[in-house]
Amino acid sequence: MLSDEQRNLLDKSGFAKLVTLMPDGHPQGTVMWYRREGDTLRMIAPESAVKVKNLDRDSRSTVIVDDPDSGYSYLELRCRCEVVHDDASAREELHRVASRYIGDRAADFVAGLSAEPRVILVFEPFRVLGQIR
Amino acid sequence: MLSDEQRNLLDKSGFAKLVTLMPDGHPQGTVMWYRREGDTLRMIAPESAVKVKNLDRDSRSTVIVDDPDSGYSYLELRCRCEVVHDDASAREELHRVASRYIGDRAADFVAGLSAEPRVILVFEPFRVLGQIR
Repeated sequence: MLSDEQRNLLDKSGFAKLVTLMPDGHPQGTVMWYRREGDTLRMIAPESAVKVKNLDRDSRSTVIVDDPDSGYSYLELRCRCEVVHDDASAREELHRVASRYIGDRAADFVAGLSAEPRVILVFEPFRVLGQIR
Repeated sequence: MLSDEQRNLLDKSGFAKLVTLMPDGHPQGTVMWYRREGDTLRMIAPESAVKVKNLDRDSRSTVIVDDPDSGYSYLELRCRCEVVHDDASAREELHRVASRYIGDRAADFVAGLSAEPRVILVFEPFRVLGQIR
């Protein structure tokens, strides 16, 4: 699914723009940390977040990742999302995700989280668009 | 609608992530130049673009603008979009939009465009979310 060039862009530490669908179908967008694993992207969110409720109801989602080195390069991944409701695994995954952005401070970051359960969002792209310049 | 702080962020020259809805309701995202005018955002696109067809059919749209100086600051604007089918006005507006990003080279950029008609996308936000840090 993903080419080497696309994987290279996704492995930089840009931020993902995650788009879900509100109950009325209007798109909802947030900016997220993420990590690529194989051909999927993984993100962590509190179980109570609007985006999680949206994805639990409707797995249709789109992720835009722009190249932190050039705003003219970006990928649009049209996805289905699986929501994994497993707080312990989500905190482990968050450590991996956060390490991409804040390095050694990830452990303290995860340790300082509230008790509210986290979920893992696993995005499986079925179509990849965009441009790499 | 927009606060001074929000206007300040929108007046930087970050890129907009524009989200429209495909015919089946799946969100579609692209990265765009834009310009703020009052409480609206304006973008230019070829009339034949998928995003334009989407917006002609369903005006529901969401625009994410992140702060080029800090990925942790961004706005999410949930909008209705008016599509203005007026090629001459669109080329004039594109000159203004492009000037924000490429300065004096905007005139040559617009002069070098194909003959395909352009449209003006006018985004009217009804809700503004996000975070400014």
